[in-house]
Amino acid sequence: MSARDAPAAPEGAAERAAERGRGGPPAPLRLGDLHASLADPLLDAMTFLNEATTRYPHAVSFAPGRPYEGFFEPADVHRYLDTYLDHLAARGAGRDAVRSTLFQYGPTKGVIADLVARTLANDEGLTVRPEALVLTVGAQEGMLLTLRALCAGPEDVLLVSSPCYVGVTGAARLLDLTTLPVPEGPGGGPDPAAVRAAARAVRAGGRRPRALYVVPDFANPSGTSMPVRARSRLLDVAAEEGVLVVEDNPYGFFARDAGERPTLKALDRRRQVVYLGSFAKTCFPGARLGYVVADQEVVGPGGRRTLLADELARLKSMTTVNTPALSQAVIGGMLLRHDCRLREANAPAAAYYAANTAVLLGELERHFPPSERRRLGISWNEPEGGFFAVLTVPFAADEAAVERCARDHGVLWTPTAPFYPAGGGERRLRLSVSSLTERQIVDGVAALAGFVRAEAG
Amino acid sequence: MSARDAPAAPEGAAERAAERGRGGPPAPLRLGDLHASLADPLLDAMTFLNEATTRYPHAVSFAPGRPYEGFFEPADVHRYLDTYLDHLAARGAGRDAVRSTLFQYGPTKGVIADLVARTLANDEGLTVRPEALVLTVGAQEGMLLTLRALCAGPEDVLLVSSPCYVGVTGAARLLDLTTLPVPEGPGGGPDPAAVRAAARAVRAGGRRPRALYVVPDFANPSGTSMPVRARSRLLDVAAEEGVLVVEDNPYGFFARDAGERPTLKALDRRRQVVYLGSFAKTCFPGARLGYVVADQEVVGPGGRRTLLADELARLKSMTTVNTPALSQAVIGGMLLRHDCRLREANAPAAAYYAANTAVLLGELERHFPPSERRRLGISWNEPEGGFFAVLTVPFAADEAAVERCARDHGVLWTPTAPFYPAGGGERRLRLSVSSLTERQIVDGVAALAGFVRAEAG
Repeated sequence: MSARDAPAAPEGAAERAAERGRGGPPAPLRLGDLHASLADPLLDAMTFLNEATTRYPHAVSFAPGRPYEGFFEPADVHRYLDTYLDHLAARGAGRDAVRSTLFQYGPTKGVIADLVARTLANDEGLTVRPEALVLTVGAQEGMLLTLRALCAGPEDVLLVSSPCYVGVTGAARLLDLTTLPVPEGPGGGPDPAAVRAAARAVRAGGRRPRALYVVPDFANPSGTSMPVRARSRLLDVAAEEGVLVVEDNPYGFFARDAGERPTLKALDRRRQVVYLGSFAKTCFPGARLGYVVADQEVVGPGGRRTLLADELARLKSMTTVNTPALSQAVIGGMLLRHDCRLREANAPAAAYYAANTAVLLGELERHFPPSERRRLGISWNEPEGGFFAVLTVPFAADEAAVERCARDHGVLWTPTAPFYPAGGGERRLRLSVSSLTERQIVDGVAALAGFVRAEAG
Repeated sequence: MSARDAPAAPEGAAERAAERGRGGPPAPLRLGDLHASLADPLLDAMTFLNEATTRYPHAVSFAPGRPYEGFFEPADVHRYLDTYLDHLAARGAGRDAVRSTLFQYGPTKGVIADLVARTLANDEGLTVRPEALVLTVGAQEGMLLTLRALCAGPEDVLLVSSPCYVGVTGAARLLDLTTLPVPEGPGGGPDPAAVRAAARAVRAGGRRPRALYVVPDFANPSGTSMPVRARSRLLDVAAEEGVLVVEDNPYGFFARDAGERPTLKALDRRRQVVYLGSFAKTCFPGARLGYVVADQEVVGPGGRRTLLADELARLKSMTTVNTPALSQAVIGGMLLRHDCRLREANAPAAAYYAANTAVLLGELERHFPPSERRRLGISWNEPEGGFFAVLTVPFAADEAAVERCARDHGVLWTPTAPFYPAGGGERRLRLSVSSLTERQIVDGVAALAGFVRAEAG
């Protein structure tokens, strides 16, 4: 046992132990005796929304951030799998080697890093050595591993934009890490000046501002994107303050406009950006495949050098051992079928989402012309792409409101308050259009307008 | 930011920050600035072995705990997938619903809990409500979630048998949990009396002995199994001491003898056992599919009741969001093809492993008859099943020895010291026979005997 200070055991533990020992009916566990993250309202919020979706299966749901499934065909899975296995054979793998790759445990960093690197070069202009990649079970696992590796202990603080994707604040809670929200700047993304101020405040308090988590493109929940000029500025400030940047980019391909948006990683000249990628939206979520670009050098005892990717893989052997070969084979085949060019392959999906967002904004405009908007005190943003837009209303957009809206108007949406780690967002609805048809959006906005009028009136 | 005490920021952080800011060559990260688990020799040991396997591809490897792959055929993956999709359709799922299940995000607890529950009933005599199951990315993720849920903080101590599977001590390190090794009893598994003593010592120190991790059947690395009588005794002691039991059972089907071995979960009348299952050995590792049976009730604020499985799922939304639908579909189809009876389906594999173990033990006997064994000071155990046996030698069986043995004798094996959290095992080799042929075992033991003689002489 370690020698660190030991708080007293939770009260009543001995009594419950004895109760369990007597052989009566099993004594239940107490939530308060489990890890504190389980009592976090953040997790409750996600559970609530899943339950609401189940309770109102016929509601038009603006809630989930899932891709449109009209482009998916089960037969494709067979084709992708065969394509990948043929590719292995064509590269000289014998029957046994092909079988091992598909069925056995594999390298912790994954088996399709070469294909992912080619895709990143084609789609993002990113030159990444395959050794700097770790394939993960979704970007979520990549996030967990990155936070765990970078944050050595309680002295390390993770800066997050506010509002912020709940997955990262949740992962931080699971690891008992401290997060510090940084407000969004004009346009979107964390304000570089605010990042500097936050980093200095953390350091002045004797702690280490370790990293900043940011979704520069079409963020969840706000849908906003960082202005290009702010991106370089953010990297400069982060470098000056010794803060690493964790960039998460699930929505980058789905631009509604023609604007150029270099990723932070593409602008990174100092290896200060750890990049989280996901195939959930550009291929499909059921493979649960993501990756981390972690090309930072790590110096160990005796000057031994590794890449941060190697260190993430060492942690991964303690979370999932390795990423399913099956998922990697199917997505690998899909990459090959599209010549490692997912941006092109996703052009129809991007057009679909852009059209849906246009319909959403048009319908909001139709139901709430400017005078009406002013009178009711409502507004919305106009994202340049992605899956989400945010509607601001003059009443509490909380779980009770979701319930009333679903029950009385047949529409679901996501309250944004859980995305604001420092509070805020209580009167905002996240509206996702990604998995709906035009018809559903038109009907859904009409029903939603009825709800908003009823609540605001 | 939380108000807890803040240790000073690591020395030199500001200097390195400034260096990074100057725009010179990127400053590397320092291993000592990353999470402490990354400096743990445990992780180095696993990395070393993977590297050794790559460096000596032609060595006979007694090292990996992987299943034999002669029973795997890529075409089966297509068949299993179609079987599962047909099953969904036969149960009334329309084309869209089938597509969603395969391609989209799914329920965090998984989609094939009903099939897993049927399999557990058929194979283990376990009656489990599907709601009490969480599908996970291998048993490793189940382990991580279970430890995270049960261990609320630094006051909680995890008891582990010694020797112990490195995956659980590794997961505990990742979560900064304290583990306390409990010696194996006669026969195998943790000694109930030692568990009681350990629990009391922890409690006397003001901390909570939260759970005991145990592999009752054919443990890794020792290959030993808990005597049946010790199993009930262990459950009684654990209940009396208020210690939950985490049972991990990857090898249970692979008995070499005809002995009856009820799982701890099958003996559990008090819902005191959380059961970790894996399809890595009974189906195949490339799906990375495992599960947790967590049927304990949890009481929250206001008396709200959930199952521990629900709480694990809430944590899982922060580690991997959900288990790949693709993996669940393929394993689901495999279960259906085998009428949810994996014990029968694995009879050929069990016979194969049993025969291999018999060959290993016979060859050791042939190369080291009793007199020779005594003279050299070597011995080995005779496991009743599973993948592993342990050879004790009169010299340090460390990484340098692995290197010499691979280089000079063409044989690889696993040093057991990393499996002993309290020290020990320095003169023991873990020998795995699961992925070898009879011929390889015969040749491998001959070469290994040469190495042992050279080192012991």
